[in-house]
Amino acid sequence: MSVRITSLQNGRIKHVTKLNQRRYRDHVRLTIVEGVREVSRALQHGITPQEAFICPELLPGEAETAVARLHALAQQNDTQLYEVTTAVFAKMAYRGDSGGLLVTIPYLNTSLDNLTLSATPLLVVIEGAEKPGNVGAILRTADGVGVDGVILSSDGPSTDLHNPNVIRASLGTLFSVGTAVAANDEILAWLHKHQIQIVAAAPAASDLYTSVDLAQPTAIIAGSEAYGLSNTWLAGIHQQVRIPMQGTADSLNLSISVAILLYEAVRQRQLT
Amino acid sequence: MSVRITSLQNGRIKHVTKLNQRRYRDHVRLTIVEGVREVSRALQHGITPQEAFICPELLPGEAETAVARLHALAQQNDTQLYEVTTAVFAKMAYRGDSGGLLVTIPYLNTSLDNLTLSATPLLVVIEGAEKPGNVGAILRTADGVGVDGVILSSDGPSTDLHNPNVIRASLGTLFSVGTAVAANDEILAWLHKHQIQIVAAAPAASDLYTSVDLAQPTAIIAGSEAYGLSNTWLAGIHQQVRIPMQGTADSLNLSISVAILLYEAVRQRQLT
Repeated sequence: MSVRITSLQNGRIKHVTKLNQRRYRDHVRLTIVEGVREVSRALQHGITPQEAFICPELLPGEAETAVARLHALAQQNDTQLYEVTTAVFAKMAYRGDSGGLLVTIPYLNTSLDNLTLSATPLLVVIEGAEKPGNVGAILRTADGVGVDGVILSSDGPSTDLHNPNVIRASLGTLFSVGTAVAANDEILAWLHKHQIQIVAAAPAASDLYTSVDLAQPTAIIAGSEAYGLSNTWLAGIHQQVRIPMQGTADSLNLSISVAILLYEAVRQRQLT
Repeated sequence: MSVRITSLQNGRIKHVTKLNQRRYRDHVRLTIVEGVREVSRALQHGITPQEAFICPELLPGEAETAVARLHALAQQNDTQLYEVTTAVFAKMAYRGDSGGLLVTIPYLNTSLDNLTLSATPLLVVIEGAEKPGNVGAILRTADGVGVDGVILSSDGPSTDLHNPNVIRASLGTLFSVGTAVAANDEILAWLHKHQIQIVAAAPAASDLYTSVDLAQPTAIIAGSEAYGLSNTWLAGIHQQVRIPMQGTADSLNLSISVAILLYEAVRQRQLT
């Protein structure tokens, strides 16, 4: 049932390596998930890979469930399975520790309407994050906090949600957290419609983040580390908050300041 | 006063590139600081570079103060100045955006006795952090929080404090935060001597981190993301605390969980 690939020149391998380019990715609307943990999380959340590349020599024991699931999907003709040599896998894999498992998956549905909101939503909006690692780290924290969603602005140059480095840095939590991608105006209108307050950390804000009510429906806005937030968001913010800074540096890492605000919201919500 | 280097084969350039190897670094007890912001912070904190490599074509305007300071140090024969071509600088620099400024500096004094403690100390101890980026991110947060010190365990394989990637990821806050490196036993004895409670995040702990008194003298222990804390620390911990986790992933990024505990300590200390 699985096709064996031994040549580094194989067309499927070229296709996978090309998925590291955003333009190609956006064109075919597919991305790469590599690593046993990451692929397992994608499968757990009901994602059907289009193709799966398995290197039996590299598979660790904990890959068993994921591989069995991939074989089941292949039997239904939902996923095409390939068995590859270690040399071929090394060419495809970005990381050294992927454990012999790499799949291609269709883009997620990232429409705002797709997000399911709880009674008092807690969300993160990311505008212009330069580093895929930061977006991945925010997703990982958002998973820990149990947010209602992480929304990426599609305005301006920014990391795309389907960047394989985002998936890697998120350790696969991209698949457990509700996500959406939309233009700034759309996101703002959607937050207003759902009566969600918009909160951003700003070094010059007068209110401490711990003195502001984050137990009500809240979206935390994270801007570019280099350029901050755009005017759209600066005008749309309901509450700027200050995270106390004692040192010489002027700001915290983006994913860290978001984590501090999210966990303060969790703390306040436990008290109510 | 400054020596011009145009050859990629120059011995000083080879010396600098070799400083990326820990063994060579530890042997000569020198490391690399690159980038205008990072070099500026080192100079602001009174560090005298041994050598400074300046590429005039790449220098941005904000490098002016740092370059003037380097010239003053060269005049006193404290620092040897080199002017390098863009090609030579590109060979030396690790980052693309270093802005034409790279210096070598002597290892910091990292003895525990060197740390200055406030009335109610707040410290971070890092044991076995695999990623230089995580150590750098913890230093950056520690600078923001204004901790009394960040202590690295020298036991086992772990990132060394003078790794150039630590300095980069710290954005130069390595120079503003008190740091120490010592063996586990030494660190434990030192914390006991100073009556500092030892707190670590553990997924299975019963106490929520927000319900524990972090306003008293506290050291947060951060263990390896892959292997957790060693038995020395597990036995030495006074208080395990739980950061609430709602999602599918089993843990937060190391630097993020440390940041959450540190900022909770700051919040509690503001209330007292």
